[in-house]
Amino acid sequence: MEEVRNNKQVIFKGFITGAPKESDMELKEGKIKDRVPSGSGGVLVKNLYLSCDPYMRGRMREYYNSYIPPFQPGSVIRGLGVSKVVDSNNPNFAVGDFVSGMTGWEEYTLIEDTEQLRKIQTKDIPLSYHVGLLGLFVQVCQVLQPMFVSAASGAVGQLVGQLAKIHGCYVVGSAGSKQKVDLLKNKLGFDEAFNYKEESDLDLALKRYFPSGIDIYFDNVGGSMLDAALLNMRPHGRIAVCGMVSQHSVSNPDGIRNLYCLVMKQIRMQGFLQSTYLHLFPQFVDRMTDFYKQRKIIYIEDMNEGLESAPSAFVGLFTGKNVGKQVVCVSRE
Amino acid sequence: MEEVRNNKQVIFKGFITGAPKESDMELKEGKIKDRVPSGSGGVLVKNLYLSCDPYMRGRMREYYNSYIPPFQPGSVIRGLGVSKVVDSNNPNFAVGDFVSGMTGWEEYTLIEDTEQLRKIQTKDIPLSYHVGLLGLFVQVCQVLQPMFVSAASGAVGQLVGQLAKIHGCYVVGSAGSKQKVDLLKNKLGFDEAFNYKEESDLDLALKRYFPSGIDIYFDNVGGSMLDAALLNMRPHGRIAVCGMVSQHSVSNPDGIRNLYCLVMKQIRMQGFLQSTYLHLFPQFVDRMTDFYKQRKIIYIEDMNEGLESAPSAFVGLFTGKNVGKQVVCVSRE
Repeated sequence: MEEVRNNKQVIFKGFITGAPKESDMELKEGKIKDRVPSGSGGVLVKNLYLSCDPYMRGRMREYYNSYIPPFQPGSVIRGLGVSKVVDSNNPNFAVGDFVSGMTGWEEYTLIEDTEQLRKIQTKDIPLSYHVGLLGLFVQVCQVLQPMFVSAASGAVGQLVGQLAKIHGCYVVGSAGSKQKVDLLKNKLGFDEAFNYKEESDLDLALKRYFPSGIDIYFDNVGGSMLDAALLNMRPHGRIAVCGMVSQHSVSNPDGIRNLYCLVMKQIRMQGFLQSTYLHLFPQFVDRMTDFYKQRKIIYIEDMNEGLESAPSAFVGLFTGKNVGKQVVCVSRE
Repeated sequence: MEEVRNNKQVIFKGFITGAPKESDMELKEGKIKDRVPSGSGGVLVKNLYLSCDPYMRGRMREYYNSYIPPFQPGSVIRGLGVSKVVDSNNPNFAVGDFVSGMTGWEEYTLIEDTEQLRKIQTKDIPLSYHVGLLGLFVQVCQVLQPMFVSAASGAVGQLVGQLAKIHGCYVVGSAGSKQKVDLLKNKLGFDEAFNYKEESDLDLALKRYFPSGIDIYFDNVGGSMLDAALLNMRPHGRIAVCGMVSQHSVSNPDGIRNLYCLVMKQIRMQGFLQSTYLHLFPQFVDRMTDFYKQRKIIYIEDMNEGLESAPSAFVGLFTGKNVGKQVVCVSRE
């Protein structure tokens, strides 16, 4: 018999300028039917782990020309999560299955667009890792050369750096606290790491770690770090442009002044989004799972407990509060 | 019998900041021996045509970390030219041969580094074209899509645009005068062209010509035009970064503010220098010669007469005075 159950939700209040604040979101007690409408092909999931990602800031502005539509004011925030199927009207998903995909920041979500859901098959890694270690994946530049990674202890940076080490690169990372720098050097196997907040001249800092230049820069931040890296690139260097997190909240972004280096050093700069590389996902999962089981990859999560903590966890991304991939645990099962 | 002959020269006076001025160069009456030292392997050439190129501005600053060394203050300016061999100590070059390569801004030059010289074989195109039409060559992005070229009537832009038309692209160019815009539309076969100096908003100008976006931007200028183009690129668009001529003379270059588009639209941006693609030169010469003979490519030169006019011709590059490839005729034979 169909019943309605309580459903705590995190609501997006309205479009913002500047860095996100907790007060831009609101906790609300909602309701949800505990059965999937028959004929809908959907699934009802119980959300276990929610991913906090900087790109979500982009959905908080009223900009309809983006690669991803804005959040709707008054609606529940949406993001990547790991969930458990509690009711199903779809032959591909059974009650009890674990899935990852786009879900809501709430206890229960009715997901009708099931094409984007992935059933989690492996039991070899912790469930929450599916929104991080396996939830994102990167086409790492294939080389054995000096590589620099910014925001290196973050969700993307930590994996990029470790994969580059596996491929034999000399890898240096930057991060924003002594704790993160220690993590990079002592736990994640980076050759060197530095705290960018303690450097008065980023150009000089990079010259210290890369006296003969950088071959690959994996850019997670943009802004002044990108400008300094351009000065230190080697001829034919490559820059993968991923996050530009430093620019997410600014309406008047920093100007990059050293782009002339692209010509003089014949640099290639490439932006990318995960969605383009979905076809590579299955082999990526296999490879990462093997690396993890062989302890070649270590993975650092910053886990907040409870749906109530989701707004503060998200806001913390933009002040560098998180150490490692930021995840919110809604429920452990 | 060895004699010494008079040799008019254009001398580089000293390192500069800002745009080049004629007074940064000096005309001098020099002397040169009319025989190549025996055993040197060199050639003595009479210079016929000299190429004026914006990249030469880069050699006027004291910057030893560049891809090309700075000019030496007090020495003759060097650049690409077409010359005639008048004495030779090298079996590969005979008196009377025409060559193109790096030479001096003077009437006669002793060239000892003969590896970089190319003997001009074809008789199908005018001699001077060897410092332009054939002296540069570009790896054109191979596509049949909307393409935008800045500085489109210049030495590089005019060829890029025409080659793109041959490959079936919709091509729009920007230039800095009505005369140049007319040239692009009525003589060079561009689909559209506009005068950037008459546009108060470059973003709107590009939206007018590319309502559904730009696939390829061949950037010869950098600065605010690059920033506007970034806003108008299509997903997976490509930007070839060639000249950045607008930034050559500025010690504090414009900041590019729209680089976040690289991520959101997965744009690839690639800088390049001619020297990397020398191995493609022979087939390029063949192809361009065919296109020229078939009148598929038109080539616009801006020819100044006399070595004395070289400084003003060079200076004019940075104010957009030249229409087409700027060449200086030292002597017609």
